[in-house]
Amino acid sequence: MVKALTIALDAMGGDAAPKMVVRGASIALERFPEIRFLMFGQEREMAPLLKGKKALLAASELRHTEDVVSSDAKPSVALRGGRKSSMRLAIDAVHNGEADCVVSAGNTGALMAMAKFVLKTLPGINRPAIASFFPTLRGESVMLDLGANVLCDAENLIDFAVMGNAFARSVLGLQVPTYALLNVGSEEIKGHESLQEASAVLRASNLPGRFLGFVEGDDIGKGTADVIVTDGFTGNVALKTAEGTANLINEYLRHTFRTSLLAGLGYLLARPAMKKLRERVDPRGYNGAMFLGLNGIVVKSHGGTDALGFANAIGVAVDMHRHGIIEKIRSDLSLLDRNSGNAQAAVV
Amino acid sequence: MVKALTIALDAMGGDAAPKMVVRGASIALERFPEIRFLMFGQEREMAPLLKGKKALLAASELRHTEDVVSSDAKPSVALRGGRKSSMRLAIDAVHNGEADCVVSAGNTGALMAMAKFVLKTLPGINRPAIASFFPTLRGESVMLDLGANVLCDAENLIDFAVMGNAFARSVLGLQVPTYALLNVGSEEIKGHESLQEASAVLRASNLPGRFLGFVEGDDIGKGTADVIVTDGFTGNVALKTAEGTANLINEYLRHTFRTSLLAGLGYLLARPAMKKLRERVDPRGYNGAMFLGLNGIVVKSHGGTDALGFANAIGVAVDMHRHGIIEKIRSDLSLLDRNSGNAQAAVV
Repeated sequence: MVKALTIALDAMGGDAAPKMVVRGASIALERFPEIRFLMFGQEREMAPLLKGKKALLAASELRHTEDVVSSDAKPSVALRGGRKSSMRLAIDAVHNGEADCVVSAGNTGALMAMAKFVLKTLPGINRPAIASFFPTLRGESVMLDLGANVLCDAENLIDFAVMGNAFARSVLGLQVPTYALLNVGSEEIKGHESLQEASAVLRASNLPGRFLGFVEGDDIGKGTADVIVTDGFTGNVALKTAEGTANLINEYLRHTFRTSLLAGLGYLLARPAMKKLRERVDPRGYNGAMFLGLNGIVVKSHGGTDALGFANAIGVAVDMHRHGIIEKIRSDLSLLDRNSGNAQAAVV
Repeated sequence: MVKALTIALDAMGGDAAPKMVVRGASIALERFPEIRFLMFGQEREMAPLLKGKKALLAASELRHTEDVVSSDAKPSVALRGGRKSSMRLAIDAVHNGEADCVVSAGNTGALMAMAKFVLKTLPGINRPAIASFFPTLRGESVMLDLGANVLCDAENLIDFAVMGNAFARSVLGLQVPTYALLNVGSEEIKGHESLQEASAVLRASNLPGRFLGFVEGDDIGKGTADVIVTDGFTGNVALKTAEGTANLINEYLRHTFRTSLLAGLGYLLARPAMKKLRERVDPRGYNGAMFLGLNGIVVKSHGGTDALGFANAIGVAVDMHRHGIIEKIRSDLSLLDRNSGNAQAAVV
């Protein structure tokens, strides 16, 4: 029997909240009948949405709160003023043991600030990171950090490697994931010093995965490594550049099929296959950015997602909990010898 | 009448050199009948390739040298030991006025090291940058730096903005190009300090283009700005990530058209249109990385390119020379007030 697990939902976060949250919870419940929800949000908005949804009502507890963190609120402001917000109360529920994970499609910066403040980082981790899946030629990989930390030193990169490695072993189900540091490839350019230092420590470590050293930007799509480790600035730019390139090619493709009658006919014939292609790169399939390194499971759904995407984000939280990611990170941290790269031991 | 211009060619650089270089020169000569070539390389290899090519022979002078810079040579080693190499002699030809530009498909690091050493940077420019075109939804844009400088301060970014702006006005033919600094977008994350500083100076400057402030990774493919300015680490990762994503989607597409008979038939019908699409994103069309900020025109062709790609790289050099890019950079530098961002004046 699978043990019940409770997910705290920030029902008010996201462009289409709370409707998309409630619908997403319904979809997730069909997939994981054993989960329970603790929903935080405005009752008058949510009650009508829940009406008639028997299974969901039976699996959910609704807690009313008036406050909502706006999507453009500064994290520091949200942290001070949003103590009764749906986002904050959902995080609090994880902290006080009422819930096992929290999922929100709200303001990323505010969610990270609140999660750090309430849940704290794991012992041995200085800074949490944002991680996400992405499709590759070989399947899917995970990359971190995607924007939580603009400036990263060697210590941070090492922490991210540990966290990403544990994630790949739990959620991606890989026994010996490969992991690598994102760098530039020319001979002359050897990357920042922090990359060299992190590389030395990781090479000397006994982490369960296999360290590949440095990879380059084109290795992301190739799937050269299961885990790509980088600083939040580079990771954010790389992720968005990949999105932009995918959109560009999509647009070119649309245009291509419209250039002639024959091409249009070709598209009609290829349509079922093209639909599969779209599903394969559907961003909703990769929805759910994981906040790793915290004393609790926090998943950030894309703010613009729909119910299906939100359900997938809930699925990621379920996977993280089931596979004991936090325990894995904890135990892996002990396998590092941080002095092997002349890096300072992390001070917590 | 168009004035003749002489292009120095490193005939031995590139995977398929010297054959691809000679063929590329032929193609370029058909496009620009007024150009002349000064080719540096091994005579015994090149003479047979030139044989029978009347027009090319008439437009070319071949200078024999035995030495070649290997593709994996360390830049510092190439700089010291390669004084008689085809690459170095081609650069020397620009320095001593025998040629107007140099084009090489050889070792990027060595080419940059030699070009900096021989040609020097322009007064007011601390470091040269590598720039390249790329396709966007709106046409094409230019991005720099793509890897010459891993660590950049505000001064460097400002220089790159001036250089990219001059490039867009000359080679892209835009009167008022838009230009922007690549950054990350979240509220909490405001990017490195150097970005803030560079932004302040550029906002206060009188450069002929229009400064858009910060853009994000997905703006690259959108074509939000004609010129994207970034440090060499981020630029290199972004460029290669875009390449990797394009390859990934290509592979998906191939697979898609093979999944069923109907899809295959659809592909056959759409083939002429698909061919146009491929041409549109053909990397050979965007071949030619420009080294900007030097006292001379240097174009680096992709090492793995074929004759068509090499001809396009020659075309870029021709464009840069015709539009007086170096003079544009020189005069634009005087329009900056570097103190407006508390940035130090460049010391040359």
